[in-house]
Amino acid sequence: MHHCMEMGMDVHKVVPPPYRSTFQKLKTKFKETFFPDDPLHQFKGQTSKKKWILGAQYVFPILEWGPNYSFKLFKSDIVSGLTIASLAIPQGISYAKLANLPAIVGLYSSFVPPLLYAILGSSRDLAVGPVSIASLIMGSMLMQEVSPSKEPVLFLQLAFTSTFFAGIFQASLGFLRLGFIIDFLSKATLIGFMAGAAVIVSLQQLKSLLGIKDFTKKMALIPVLTSVFQERREWSWQTILMGCCFLALLLLSRHISMKKPKLFWVSAGAPLVSVILSTLIVFAFKANSHGISVIGELPKGLNPPSWNMLQFKGSHLVLAIKTGITTGVIALTEGIAVGRTFAAIKDYRVDGNKEMIAIGLMNIVGSSTSCYITTGSFSRSAVNHNAGAKTAVSNIVMSVAVMVTLLFLMPLFQYTPNVILGAIIVTAVAGLIDIPAAYHIWKVDKYDFIVLVCAFLGVIFISVQEGLAIAVGISVFKILLQVTRPRTVVLGNIPGTDIFRDLQHYKESTVSVPGFLIISIEAAINFANTTYLNERILRWIEEEDEGEKHSSVRYVIIDMTAVSTIDTTGITLFGDLRKAITKRGLELVLVNPLAEVMEKLQKADESNELMRPDTLYLTVGEAVASLSMSMKNQASNIYNEEMQKQQQQQEEKPNVIDSSQSE
Amino acid sequence: MHHCMEMGMDVHKVVPPPYRSTFQKLKTKFKETFFPDDPLHQFKGQTSKKKWILGAQYVFPILEWGPNYSFKLFKSDIVSGLTIASLAIPQGISYAKLANLPAIVGLYSSFVPPLLYAILGSSRDLAVGPVSIASLIMGSMLMQEVSPSKEPVLFLQLAFTSTFFAGIFQASLGFLRLGFIIDFLSKATLIGFMAGAAVIVSLQQLKSLLGIKDFTKKMALIPVLTSVFQERREWSWQTILMGCCFLALLLLSRHISMKKPKLFWVSAGAPLVSVILSTLIVFAFKANSHGISVIGELPKGLNPPSWNMLQFKGSHLVLAIKTGITTGVIALTEGIAVGRTFAAIKDYRVDGNKEMIAIGLMNIVGSSTSCYITTGSFSRSAVNHNAGAKTAVSNIVMSVAVMVTLLFLMPLFQYTPNVILGAIIVTAVAGLIDIPAAYHIWKVDKYDFIVLVCAFLGVIFISVQEGLAIAVGISVFKILLQVTRPRTVVLGNIPGTDIFRDLQHYKESTVSVPGFLIISIEAAINFANTTYLNERILRWIEEEDEGEKHSSVRYVIIDMTAVSTIDTTGITLFGDLRKAITKRGLELVLVNPLAEVMEKLQKADESNELMRPDTLYLTVGEAVASLSMSMKNQASNIYNEEMQKQQQQQEEKPNVIDSSQSE
Repeated sequence: MHHCMEMGMDVHKVVPPPYRSTFQKLKTKFKETFFPDDPLHQFKGQTSKKKWILGAQYVFPILEWGPNYSFKLFKSDIVSGLTIASLAIPQGISYAKLANLPAIVGLYSSFVPPLLYAILGSSRDLAVGPVSIASLIMGSMLMQEVSPSKEPVLFLQLAFTSTFFAGIFQASLGFLRLGFIIDFLSKATLIGFMAGAAVIVSLQQLKSLLGIKDFTKKMALIPVLTSVFQERREWSWQTILMGCCFLALLLLSRHISMKKPKLFWVSAGAPLVSVILSTLIVFAFKANSHGISVIGELPKGLNPPSWNMLQFKGSHLVLAIKTGITTGVIALTEGIAVGRTFAAIKDYRVDGNKEMIAIGLMNIVGSSTSCYITTGSFSRSAVNHNAGAKTAVSNIVMSVAVMVTLLFLMPLFQYTPNVILGAIIVTAVAGLIDIPAAYHIWKVDKYDFIVLVCAFLGVIFISVQEGLAIAVGISVFKILLQVTRPRTVVLGNIPGTDIFRDLQHYKESTVSVPGFLIISIEAAINFANTTYLNERILRWIEEEDEGEKHSSVRYVIIDMTAVSTIDTTGITLFGDLRKAITKRGLELVLVNPLAEVMEKLQKADESNELMRPDTLYLTVGEAVASLSMSMKNQASNIYNEEMQKQQQQQEEKPNVIDSSQSE
Repeated sequence: MHHCMEMGMDVHKVVPPPYRSTFQKLKTKFKETFFPDDPLHQFKGQTSKKKWILGAQYVFPILEWGPNYSFKLFKSDIVSGLTIASLAIPQGISYAKLANLPAIVGLYSSFVPPLLYAILGSSRDLAVGPVSIASLIMGSMLMQEVSPSKEPVLFLQLAFTSTFFAGIFQASLGFLRLGFIIDFLSKATLIGFMAGAAVIVSLQQLKSLLGIKDFTKKMALIPVLTSVFQERREWSWQTILMGCCFLALLLLSRHISMKKPKLFWVSAGAPLVSVILSTLIVFAFKANSHGISVIGELPKGLNPPSWNMLQFKGSHLVLAIKTGITTGVIALTEGIAVGRTFAAIKDYRVDGNKEMIAIGLMNIVGSSTSCYITTGSFSRSAVNHNAGAKTAVSNIVMSVAVMVTLLFLMPLFQYTPNVILGAIIVTAVAGLIDIPAAYHIWKVDKYDFIVLVCAFLGVIFISVQEGLAIAVGISVFKILLQVTRPRTVVLGNIPGTDIFRDLQHYKESTVSVPGFLIISIEAAINFANTTYLNERILRWIEEEDEGEKHSSVRYVIIDMTAVSTIDTTGITLFGDLRKAITKRGLELVLVNPLAEVMEKLQKADESNELMRPDTLYLTVGEAVASLSMSMKNQASNIYNEEMQKQQQQQEEKPNVIDSSQSE
């Protein structure tokens, strides 16, 4: 390297990162994996009293905003709370039906969980209660083993039990800081899954919309449609007429609210209005004796305790746990996505892991007070936000409204027709089919679109939970495929600069540097891609050889700027490459290994072959500049040597032949 | 940007890559995933006759080297062939016992498969036949459902059937170009797994080494040890004495060969010598009637056909398929790793997918000629290489030697004691415990070491196949964890240059640039890490804010040099970040998005917010230079504006108050 110095060129040394012990490194990695949000940050440098207060506020966010609560905020919250109550009551009853549970359980679930969330939750906009997707999944999974019509008590017990396990699972994810698990449900998966679920739910509602009594218990498209057309005799025109009218009314109100967001109360109030209207009609015309089925009598009073109904043994325990985990994950995904969406709009932050604990505790307590799985609902939270909710007090207001209903208004629902509940569900889930988002995904990333379609088709043709599993599987497979086949590109120089960029991408502005093959590896190197990278890089070299008749390449430079980590298998790549490259008479040069890679290379490379200063540079530019110069020097040296040899050969010709024979 | 131009500064434009249609992109990706070795490359530009020849040579590599085969090569091959035959015969018998199969099947399996491999295989050093690990797994998996002592015929049928499925699976992996699946067995996994298997196999041999008759059928450590000590009465001193002597002899010969590689024939010949010696001893002393169990009579003659023994229905089919896939993968891994190792030493190349087809076909044919699973053996290939093998003809020579044995020498094995087979197996598997490699992994990568330990403990305490599954699971989990928590680092400038590097790593030489926070994302962005990256980057900004009382940061620069791909969820990161950053009064600048990322950003970014030329630069250096300048200009502009405002305020003070009230 001395010649560079002579020329005044500044070559920067590649150095290993400052020493840190294994323990320190593990600690950092652990912290970054499980505490990326640094939750203890705010406690730093506080007095111990302040620390206690902050700790209490961390566990009970209500202590944070409660003291500053004002009458002005309350005025907003009462309006929004009553608005979402008008939506929550009909939806609660409907969603309970979707889960094959008694309608009253839907109302119970709209009373206790919102109260708990108001104390524990950190979102100001989340409206908590039963939601359509989780209800659907719980209903369909439990139905695999137990019939809700034949063994209603056992079914209810299992629903509470799986709600309990869902809560345990959710809270554990939060406690164990494993919240990132829900990130594995990608946007594409969710859009496909939601759309599929919406189709399935809507089809299921044909039962109540057409007034069919003997309906299939299955969830997939084909059995449902078969059931619909086989039971054509059971279709009741009164039910169909009523259903169509109210469905049109509800969809119209939804359309109005979507067009003019200020009129959000139209769609928010429509379900309750429909329930009241339809109940009056049935009552007035005694339509329940003319083929229109009604909810029937509902018990008055608040949630009865249900901890005695939790089942921790028996043959259905595995199913209850599986159902709990599946519904728990889905409920969390919805709840946290909704919380984050509105937090981003109002510019505050929702802590994912904390939310998981809040939602988990809410479901654990819920399962012993006759509530089934609940979470933050997207549609009701949007209404809550539009109605001007300021804090979680709107959930308390809603809860009180539901309480009043439970205590005094239950007899009014006796004549509410089931068909109206079907119409409410269809209207609610119609919003889950997001065609513009699907189109956007198609435009940007075809593979993501395949994931979306698989989720959609899996849900409608196989089953809700298997469709979801397939989509998650394909998403993870995509990641593994990317890891297995990382991109490598050949870099070229932008003339007149020391910038090196992808030759294919910057076709116009870059040129390849004679004598050098510069390859950039664009991913972490590990056991799954070491073999591939080895073959691929050798192929780059071969292709370069073939391009020109006599390859002028002397140096293979590997730019490692994008190689963030490496493992023990990956490290062997460089030894193997060096051997293969040296055999071809070329030299391997590494550029800019990052901290972790540098450390591991150093530890593994006992012979210090890879770490020689003349094969390790900080930038591609410096490597090229410095090596070009030594190439020139060598060329003149070789020329001199050749001359000397020729002279020697002429002097001692016989000797040369001898030595070649002895080999 | 005009001011840069004015100053003569050269800012390079970031452009999208040249247009390619979706089909072209899919084609490239497909080719890179499944045909990274470009197998059709050699056919390019050849005449059609030449193409036929090349095609035939591709399918039958023997046509490639056969025509140039010479007597000189044959001399080398015959020596090495006879050497490996002397190893293959005792090992064949021993490994068949390991798989709970009749000893003769081990010899059959050393006859047909090597012949086939000589025609189909592309490695010149691979010695083909039964191997210990695959034998162990097949034996232990099949024993889960069928007892080899009670139903020997059914057991044999299942062994052939699962060999058939192993062959089908191996050949399909090759045909479908899915060879990368075996890459998921990382080095760490294999070392731990091999060591565990060696321990289990050795413990199993205590049965024959101690002369116990009623031995446990289980494979895990605890039942085996229990069995050994419970049956202490069955221990036979004659067997133990003989076993210890020969074990010492074999281990000594192995030690000699390891110390002096030139004496490789000592360990290569030792097993056969031991078999002959021990057989003579038993025969001379009639020791078989003194408690030393012997192999007994073996049928003379070549492999009988066994296609009529393949079972494609019945209750054990699932087990046969599972066993086939597991042993198939393990056998492939060993065979291909061995092939690649020796190919690298002699500098030729082994095509993974082609080898899979060769090994697969060999097992399919093997399963119908009374052979069980075979592959390239590491120990015998090493001997083959050391003995000077030049081509696959050494396999043919070995095969002929085995044939001679089968035809004429079988009666000689009648008195071979089982204890000697145990000693041979223990010596062979002792080489699988690679403590230096394990120490190397411990030194370089702690997580890989955990994977190793899990594989080891899983194999010895749970079961061979579950230990393997656990280790693969943990390896994949590590990759997913890396994907979920990608590294982000803050870059600083090396003063006097436009080089930007990790501030933590190059602590001494870099300084942070005032006014800028430069963050490098060091991984592909996808659904699994979008949320994390969003939070992490915002935390970097907050930490920067806290560091100084009045943060001077104006620009957040994100260096995307290491972001190789992005998906639809990942793209939302930049929109969300821009919103959050703008709210803090800062600006987001992107640097050097790579080809694929650039394309997708452009497609997704309809408002063209992220693609504005003043927020997109080709290098960090240019971004900093250009933005510093506009910062200075703004500063003077702001100063000017302030001055103007103050003047205005003094002139029209009442108006200002009015306008603030109206807000």
